[in-house]
Amino acid sequence: MEKGFEEKLQHFQELVHKIKYYNEALSVIFWDLRTGAPKKGVPSRAKVIGMLSTESFKLSTSEEMEDCLHYFEQEENNSKLDHIYKAVVKECRKEYDRSKKIPEAMYKEYVILTSEAESIWEEAKNTDNFLMFSPYLEKIVDFNIKFIDLWGYKDNKYNTLLDYYEPGMTVEKLDRIFEQLRERIVPLVQNIKNSPYQPDDSMFFKNCFDTARQEEFSLMILDKMGYSFDAGRLDVSEHPFTIGMCPGDVRITTHYYQDNFISALFSSIHEGGHALYEQNISTELEDTPVGTASSMGIHESQSRLWENIIGRSRSFWSCYIEDLHKIFPEEFKGVSLEDFYKAINKVAPSLIRTDADEVTYNLHVMIRYEIEKALINKEIKVADLPEIWKEKMKEYLGIEPNNDREGVLQDVHWSGGSFGYFPSYTLGNIYSAQIYNAIRKQFNNLDEMIKNGELTKIKDWLGENIHKHGKLLTPAEILKSVTGEEINSGYLIDYLESKYKEIYKL
Amino acid sequence: MEKGFEEKLQHFQELVHKIKYYNEALSVIFWDLRTGAPKKGVPSRAKVIGMLSTESFKLSTSEEMEDCLHYFEQEENNSKLDHIYKAVVKECRKEYDRSKKIPEAMYKEYVILTSEAESIWEEAKNTDNFLMFSPYLEKIVDFNIKFIDLWGYKDNKYNTLLDYYEPGMTVEKLDRIFEQLRERIVPLVQNIKNSPYQPDDSMFFKNCFDTARQEEFSLMILDKMGYSFDAGRLDVSEHPFTIGMCPGDVRITTHYYQDNFISALFSSIHEGGHALYEQNISTELEDTPVGTASSMGIHESQSRLWENIIGRSRSFWSCYIEDLHKIFPEEFKGVSLEDFYKAINKVAPSLIRTDADEVTYNLHVMIRYEIEKALINKEIKVADLPEIWKEKMKEYLGIEPNNDREGVLQDVHWSGGSFGYFPSYTLGNIYSAQIYNAIRKQFNNLDEMIKNGELTKIKDWLGENIHKHGKLLTPAEILKSVTGEEINSGYLIDYLESKYKEIYKL
Repeated sequence: MEKGFEEKLQHFQELVHKIKYYNEALSVIFWDLRTGAPKKGVPSRAKVIGMLSTESFKLSTSEEMEDCLHYFEQEENNSKLDHIYKAVVKECRKEYDRSKKIPEAMYKEYVILTSEAESIWEEAKNTDNFLMFSPYLEKIVDFNIKFIDLWGYKDNKYNTLLDYYEPGMTVEKLDRIFEQLRERIVPLVQNIKNSPYQPDDSMFFKNCFDTARQEEFSLMILDKMGYSFDAGRLDVSEHPFTIGMCPGDVRITTHYYQDNFISALFSSIHEGGHALYEQNISTELEDTPVGTASSMGIHESQSRLWENIIGRSRSFWSCYIEDLHKIFPEEFKGVSLEDFYKAINKVAPSLIRTDADEVTYNLHVMIRYEIEKALINKEIKVADLPEIWKEKMKEYLGIEPNNDREGVLQDVHWSGGSFGYFPSYTLGNIYSAQIYNAIRKQFNNLDEMIKNGELTKIKDWLGENIHKHGKLLTPAEILKSVTGEEINSGYLIDYLESKYKEIYKL
Repeated sequence: MEKGFEEKLQHFQELVHKIKYYNEALSVIFWDLRTGAPKKGVPSRAKVIGMLSTESFKLSTSEEMEDCLHYFEQEENNSKLDHIYKAVVKECRKEYDRSKKIPEAMYKEYVILTSEAESIWEEAKNTDNFLMFSPYLEKIVDFNIKFIDLWGYKDNKYNTLLDYYEPGMTVEKLDRIFEQLRERIVPLVQNIKNSPYQPDDSMFFKNCFDTARQEEFSLMILDKMGYSFDAGRLDVSEHPFTIGMCPGDVRITTHYYQDNFISALFSSIHEGGHALYEQNISTELEDTPVGTASSMGIHESQSRLWENIIGRSRSFWSCYIEDLHKIFPEEFKGVSLEDFYKAINKVAPSLIRTDADEVTYNLHVMIRYEIEKALINKEIKVADLPEIWKEKMKEYLGIEPNNDREGVLQDVHWSGGSFGYFPSYTLGNIYSAQIYNAIRKQFNNLDEMIKNGELTKIKDWLGENIHKHGKLLTPAEILKSVTGEEINSGYLIDYLESKYKEIYKL
């Protein structure tokens, strides 16, 4: 018996909502585990996570789902859907195909492999033992290549991985982007390194920054950015993160160090940028797979925009330097706006990506991109990675690690199988500069606005032009509608050159 | 095709575990909602709770479940089960029958009614408007009577409700118990009221108790009791509660008031008593419906034992009075052990059950028991409750409320349909005195032990004799094995008389 359209739609919506509710429950559990769940409860909680994930996965790949998708993909039915549910059908189809094309046994083997690999990686990193990790990495790469063959690809195998995190992104485009970055950023870093003027940032690394007051300061800045504490909260975790359960509940974490003032502050601003995105996705998209960010790159553009372009600007600190002096009167005694501005913008080639400044950061990403692309296309071998890593570090940053711990073993991503994710960081930086340029055109007195602390005007603009659309628009569509252009790394490079030439008196 | 025993057992275990994991996920979400979840996320979270509860309910009442129960209830199969799974089959059968006997449509109507009634009750209480709430209460009572007719009952309709919270408890037994309490507690309260000696507890109600130090003190006492912080945590919520997700994760909350020192402290000890129970249920019972407390009464016996019998004893404070003076040197300057002991044991008839001391508390419960029993047996009408309440308050406690807000509207229980629950509080008090008497026989120097702070010896004894068994034993079986006796309110009455005659110099 054929169900009527309305009945079928209701059934599909229930299915879609149920998957969302499983994921929301999982998000609460993940947040709890990382912010202070009692350690003896972890084994039991892992079983709960396993069960809920399995149920959600079963629904996404169920006959019911295939039946609904088949129905709503037919033109006569599809045309009756609103624009939101048209997009939902596409997203569910993507997810369905992606999961269904991998044989269940193969996928299970991969899940076990990566969960083992993550703990092996941790030990390998701690003991600086690449050989311990490399057999796992080889298998993970092989699995990814097999998956790509099953999923299919266009032009380059790596494209399939890229597209998962950044719909529409290709090796062809990325190669051109990184080429442009390399050409102008590598010499910029060299010039900065050689400049006789070097900012002094030692003020941040004295062991005196009370964590309660650091928290107070982070909370104040988040509030000024327009982060809603009725729809979120700030907690402490080992590594800072943002987790959105629904637009009404988007939580962020940070990590305070008594001997490092800037780490927690800028990670709060960074995560705050991510959180503003998720808090302001239209509630019309709630409980659907399009009620989420357009891509990892667009997500990262929001965090970088707030952290670097706004949060490390002179205008921003011209507004908050007084609060800084109020909350830390002794610690920043005699530190002027200029001293502070230059200190937070100190650039220096370093070994660890997560500690890198905004100029060198993209070079770290470029190394990982080049390695991933070559691995997936079988142009290099896992065994050679430590050497390749060192060579690339020397070429792009002029320094090289003494060990693999600070080299090829530093990031968790590969152990979990996340190939294709790293470029999102640089795409985020590029997008952020393009978007900021568009914002500047909107407000002819932008620097004055920031100096006056009118940050919520920027938040509102981002909400209206980017956030509210969720995943209804692709990254390219968002960029086009906001800037009128395609991706263009020129804006980021111009921004970096002009900012750092002034700071370093080049 | 008949599945083999092993295969069938595995299937049944998976079903049982899955239900447990849904409940564990729900517990994390409930805890989160009450300890600081952002308020704008609540509507979405309610949908998640609805979905997870429905899934769990579906499994408990599924054909699969009936099929497994049918199989394992057959003697040839049942005899092959271990003692744990024999009990699991019984528990699942109870739950299955309880749920299946109510027509789905009727149950849904009831769920909607009680969820509406809870918010109506809140408003009715706030505005002191019994007439606003009474139509809901009438319907809830009617539903409960209908449910009892469907479930069946023995001797008295109220027995079925009692049995749900306290397996094996009956009106016959409870009537006798409350009769004994009434006979000796009502005059005791009267004598205390008339005593010329009245302790001074004003020291607790000065607006000076720093909440961070209150927390420090609660944490210290919980640690001494043997509460494991690797398997739990202490947070703040509007109303204190304990929630056990699994033995490795049993969390408690309290509520600090700057102008009330004893509220948070004794609720921490009370919840700590509940939590010790759940932390020490045998891990052999984990992930099954018998890996929980034997009954609400036994649960309450653990909290009351720690809060009142131990926590309000002279020996206990002889051990911790020094710590008290260290943490609150100014606040308790000049307060001796005797002053403190008498102040925490001040007795006075009062209107609100949750604020009542250990002597008058059971009289509050008695009023509720008598009313519930009469309502369910249609001997009184909802409309007459305000008057009945006042009369009983006057008879048992010698005071009466000026309004319904402080009278019949004070408790949340009835709005949610929890009839039969109130007696658990008094059963807990009675059990606690009986159990303590058994402990005293075990350790011939119990008071010395407590004075020396050797509380974990008591915790270990409770763990070994009560906690570890979970729901494998009924309340009566636990009492019999621990005390050799049936329930006997004499121990509680003797304890109260002897303690308060000394304090009030009667």
